[in-house]
Amino acid sequence: MNVVDELGAGLGGLVDTSPAALEEARADRSGHAAPGRPLAIVHAGTVEHVQQVMRIATRTRTPVVVRGAGTGLAGAANAGEGEIVLSTARMTAVREISADDLIAVVEPGILNADLNDLLSGHGLWWAPDPASRAISTVGGNIATGAGGLLCAKYGVVRDAVLGVDLVLSDGRLLHLGHRSVKGVTGLDLTSLVIGSEGTLGVIVGATLKLRRLPEGSPCTITATFAGVRDAAAASAAVTASGAQPAIMELMDAASLAAVASLLHLPAPAAGAAQLTIQTDGPASATEADAIAAVLRAHGGDVQLSHDREEGERLLGIRRSMHPAMAALGTTLIEDVSVPRSAMPAMFDEIARIERDYGLSIPTVAHAGDGNLHPNFIFEGEIVPDPVWAAADELFRAAIALGGTLTGEHGIGTLKSRWLAAELGDDQWELQRQITRVFDPLGILNPGKVFHPHA
Amino acid sequence: MNVVDELGAGLGGLVDTSPAALEEARADRSGHAAPGRPLAIVHAGTVEHVQQVMRIATRTRTPVVVRGAGTGLAGAANAGEGEIVLSTARMTAVREISADDLIAVVEPGILNADLNDLLSGHGLWWAPDPASRAISTVGGNIATGAGGLLCAKYGVVRDAVLGVDLVLSDGRLLHLGHRSVKGVTGLDLTSLVIGSEGTLGVIVGATLKLRRLPEGSPCTITATFAGVRDAAAASAAVTASGAQPAIMELMDAASLAAVASLLHLPAPAAGAAQLTIQTDGPASATEADAIAAVLRAHGGDVQLSHDREEGERLLGIRRSMHPAMAALGTTLIEDVSVPRSAMPAMFDEIARIERDYGLSIPTVAHAGDGNLHPNFIFEGEIVPDPVWAAADELFRAAIALGGTLTGEHGIGTLKSRWLAAELGDDQWELQRQITRVFDPLGILNPGKVFHPHA
Repeated sequence: MNVVDELGAGLGGLVDTSPAALEEARADRSGHAAPGRPLAIVHAGTVEHVQQVMRIATRTRTPVVVRGAGTGLAGAANAGEGEIVLSTARMTAVREISADDLIAVVEPGILNADLNDLLSGHGLWWAPDPASRAISTVGGNIATGAGGLLCAKYGVVRDAVLGVDLVLSDGRLLHLGHRSVKGVTGLDLTSLVIGSEGTLGVIVGATLKLRRLPEGSPCTITATFAGVRDAAAASAAVTASGAQPAIMELMDAASLAAVASLLHLPAPAAGAAQLTIQTDGPASATEADAIAAVLRAHGGDVQLSHDREEGERLLGIRRSMHPAMAALGTTLIEDVSVPRSAMPAMFDEIARIERDYGLSIPTVAHAGDGNLHPNFIFEGEIVPDPVWAAADELFRAAIALGGTLTGEHGIGTLKSRWLAAELGDDQWELQRQITRVFDPLGILNPGKVFHPHA
Repeated sequence: MNVVDELGAGLGGLVDTSPAALEEARADRSGHAAPGRPLAIVHAGTVEHVQQVMRIATRTRTPVVVRGAGTGLAGAANAGEGEIVLSTARMTAVREISADDLIAVVEPGILNADLNDLLSGHGLWWAPDPASRAISTVGGNIATGAGGLLCAKYGVVRDAVLGVDLVLSDGRLLHLGHRSVKGVTGLDLTSLVIGSEGTLGVIVGATLKLRRLPEGSPCTITATFAGVRDAAAASAAVTASGAQPAIMELMDAASLAAVASLLHLPAPAAGAAQLTIQTDGPASATEADAIAAVLRAHGGDVQLSHDREEGERLLGIRRSMHPAMAALGTTLIEDVSVPRSAMPAMFDEIARIERDYGLSIPTVAHAGDGNLHPNFIFEGEIVPDPVWAAADELFRAAIALGGTLTGEHGIGTLKSRWLAAELGDDQWELQRQITRVFDPLGILNPGKVFHPHA
């Protein structure tokens, strides 16, 4: 009996081998696709389904790619020839919400936005806020260690998960972490699983650390500057002033122009860059005034709104970056992160790479935490070699500035060849050996993250 | 050449074999001591010294116990027969302080309080605040994943470390983590090292995430209740109100009485328990008023001070718990942590265990995060069997309430026999295998944490 027959015998109607579904599972939102088509997709509805799939995969030595909503940007959930796709998208139950303990226990397939809609009825909130929150799953957020717009003030996924239920490659179920605020019993395997991109096990449940919804009404500020370096310097000045905005986003001239074109807005001034800043909490208005003063002192043309809907409209410009890039061509979205003080220098490096390669690299940044998303645009499905060469320079520049390859998207397939450049060979090998403790046969997402390097 | 001669040949005057020093290295502040005396203490002054020691240890298969200030409470840094003590207490340099990026790069031996004295001159602060901060090292804080009084609002060590430099058992140096706020490159080995209690490598440097010192003046509240359950319920009501005190400490009647006796204060009313709460930041006075109202509504006899020095005096009562216990006899300080809503139930369990075993178990709690420190007092150096039996019931009760064995002190030797009860055998074995990836020969802190269980 071949592996697809075994899956069918055990899991019946949960096994999907329709060509359209298999084709869809080849790619995530990075635009990249795995070579070939996977064997089958199993739509797990329960932890036991996941365990069954992993037992069959172990017995037959078949690679497994775990997949949520497929919104990743690094290719980690792309499945190709000879692989089983294990989808947890149908595991959407919220098992518990405790306002007293500020925790929720959820299944991995629930969408981030759906969870937060539910929590808001309790006055609660799970803070991780990837730009994809409307379409990405909590399990995927955990598997990639997702960030987002609110991180400088409210932290990343790593700060908001207390425990993870993990099915190992052989089908055994482990309960990692704890429900209490504090806990140092043994090694912190919960943190190890966060951002492990499907290489350690299948996330089948999570205990999330919640916050109460902030009081008061948010205030939103936009500030336009003559150039991107001025905007970066102004954002650094905001941080240095001690202000803690909930959101501080930077868009360069090419990004602004692309979004204006998509949304049919008036074209921005040539070269102009923009900061969009939101304050929240009981002191939001006072904080917004103080921030506006810093921005004006740094040459910003400032507008301030106390209206929630107007604020959403202004942030909508930033949130339209993704479709605006897609309208220009195929996009390779990069994700370097540098210490905040190095942001202006990183923009200088991007400008240099644009000149050297004759490319336009529209860039947005989570300016409060030093995370930049430079976008490479090209025609066709395959990233052209000069784009990879430019990206290579970008990564090395970020690392040289004390930064990192990926702030929040992960390594996946797209960045695996640079992983050792950041980790060093010794740490790369140590990390790969740790994956083998969880997955001795190497059947969990093989070729991702720790793809053998040259 | 034996190992001590090898150490002497390589490290000369850094090697200490004086009987007094060897005797001191047998015990930490738990009062427990390792059997026998270690071979030698090496006072490393540089990363290269640490690497040399580990190379000699690997070549000679000699166990190594890493030690900072020896203030641990679980026996993890206790060194015994046949072991090398590798002290990082002399590695106290602060390599960098960056106010712009809110990071500091430090060596492991600097005391928490010394670092914070230095940082305060820059308007900065490293938030982890163990009760031992005046005498414990940053490296030890990281190795144990220390908590403290300020955790509910400002987080634990895990939330305040971006990267760790780690010397492996064979002497190789790895740079784990990053300097940027965000970073998801590869597995999060920094988090894995935090709280690993000397089993994965030697921490020789750390990149710390700093905060700006809070503005405004703190307000301090004490509230006395008829009994400990009332105090626990009132603290839960404060949390449920959405207030976020910086500190919220609970002392039961036996703790209050012991401290009053030590400090020559008037004896508290029989059975009375107390909350000590501090608010900080620009809205500290408003928050303190709101909290005082909640406490009064729950039957508390409330006093509020806006004076910083008076606040320190009131907190000094809580900080005197340790010496007050020591004055009563030998202490086994426990450290269970439960979800906040389970605190009253945990106090019921403690009362039941007191009755069943005829023991007094003075207990203090970090009430804002559900972390309790029940103290078992006895005569002599060896924990009597009935005390271990009572502690066993305490641990199992905490786990049954959704809690954990140790909130902030660690497993060390004192709790290693309960580790599998919380982790389960599969996870216990997986964690032990991970330690073997870092330390294939098993020479790093053998017998600690993952001591083979029955």
